Amino acid sequence: MERIGGLLATHPQRPPDPALIEACAAACYEGAGLCVACSDACLGEAHVADLVCCIRTCLDCADVCLASARIVSRLTQPSPMLVEAQLMACAEACRICAAECERHAAMHDHCRVCADACRACEQACRALLHGASLA
Amino acid sequence: MERIGGLLATHPQRPPDPALIEACAAACYEGAGLCVACSDACLGEAHVADLVCCIRTCLDCADVCLASARIVSRLTQPSPMLVEAQLMACAEACRICAAECERHAAMHDHCRVCADACRACEQACRALLHGASLA
Amino acid sequence: MERIGGLLATHPQRPPDPALIEACAAACYEGAGLCVACSDACLGEAHVADLVCCIRTCLDCADVCLASARIVSRLTQPSPMLVEAQLMACAEACRICAAECERHAAMHDHCRVCADACRACEQACRALLHGASLA
Amino acid sequence: MERIGGLLATHPQRPPDPALIEACAAACYEGAGLCVACSDACLGEAHVADLVCCIRTCLDCADVCLASARIVSRLTQPSPMLVEAQLMACAEACRICAAECERHAAMHDHCRVCADACRACEQACRALLHGASLA
Repeated sequence: MERIGGLLATHPQRPPDPALIEACAAACYEGAGLCVACSDACLGEAHVADLVCCIRTCLDCADVCLASARIVSRLTQPSPMLVEAQLMACAEACRICAAECERHAAMHDHCRVCADACRACEQACRALLHGASLA
Repeated sequence: MERIGGLLATHPQRPPDPALIEACAAACYEGAGLCVACSDACLGEAHVADLVCCIRTCLDCADVCLASARIVSRLTQPSPMLVEAQLMACAEACRICAAECERHAAMHDHCRVCADACRACEQACRALLHGASLA
Repeated sequence: MERIGGLLATHPQRPPDPALIEACAAACYEGAGLCVACSDACLGEAHVADLVCCIRTCLDCADVCLASARIVSRLTQPSPMLVEAQLMACAEACRICAAECERHAAMHDHCRVCADACRACEQACRALLHGASLA
Repeated sequence: MERIGGLLATHPQRPPDPALIEACAAACYEGAGLCVACSDACLGEAHVADLVCCIRTCLDCADVCLASARIVSRLTQPSPMLVEAQLMACAEACRICAAECERHAAMHDHCRVCADACRACEQACRALLHGASLA
């Protein structure tokens, strides 16, 4: 999602300090994409039965991250309470998914990469929740 | 989404009392679909400039409802904290979107229908959050 | 998706004969929801390793159906060529997913229900492609 | 989507030459994200009534690109005919959306950036369709 910052920079209702928003949107898209890919990589492993919980959690986390990415990257007349509620859900989903993927990280590199993306997304959501950029 | 209950009834990991889950999944899908359709109907109105906030809110609510619908309709090894966090976000998004659509309900029937669906979805999310079905 | 027809009936740019559009939108949403639920039910089966192809196909079909449902249910200034291209992809995805689910229908009721929904969605897409409602 | 290539590199069923697949997945995610952001930027413009068609087209293109991105980034037991059908729809959607955004590119920078992303996505879809990587 290299150009998302470039596009948001041209938005007619761009807030004065959009750095946290742009970082969060990019991290949520990254989390959504990597969780889809990790769930599929788990599905392709020989011992798929051992990875059922990881697949399920990645699918959920992908859905939460995607909704969050789309919402955060909209700058026109946002509803702060709606954004805040979804970011809290996203931080929680990423925390849970990272913990699950980390259990398999030594065995499966895709789980390690996915866990890193989830941790980064959790932090970006919390940074935006605690920052002033939503105001 | 007439058959979703029928499919969930055949799930190998169906919980003992799935009524609240099935109702919530159906209400979230309904909310997601109607918010997309209402945002488009608003976009097609002659006075679209008066409906910018409604379009934006419907698009956000559609994203939150869709993520919630998909997560709730998965019964295999759910993560209760992830489900709970997303349902709280969904109840909040639906409350906000219903309130916005109700402002235009006297003028636009699609906003009235959408507000009703959002209220029903909010209630279904809260019922599942407060029920025992997640355990 | 009981109210989608009700909402589309109030759309300011509703075409003169929206029956095929409304039926297609409802069938695509149904296909999307049931494919998500079937992929999860397959994931919860004891012999998940035998259902990897079915899970993968259902996940793909859910994505195609969802995109189609959202596009078809938008009535404001549609692009006929874009709609047609996506409906062709959706009919193909549903055909393939129905065939895969039917292989497991005798063993797993959720695959039977999902296959039925995919067949219905394929037919609704083809009916809209061949109808005049897009004009 | 910086890490998607990194994750796909660890996939247990990675094809021998995944370059076109990885490029297509990244371009589709980029197209999906930028079309959502452009539709919102258009919605925030003072003359939103002049941009109704652009908003509608971007919303459709975002849906098609997202479905395509998710499907292409799954490497486990893909269905070549399903992938091909969706990529054809995606190339068409991107072609149409790029043309629409280009009409506003001189006036609105976000339309220019979005059109560039759509053109890149169209090309990546066509490259994968014509390449041997699906086999």
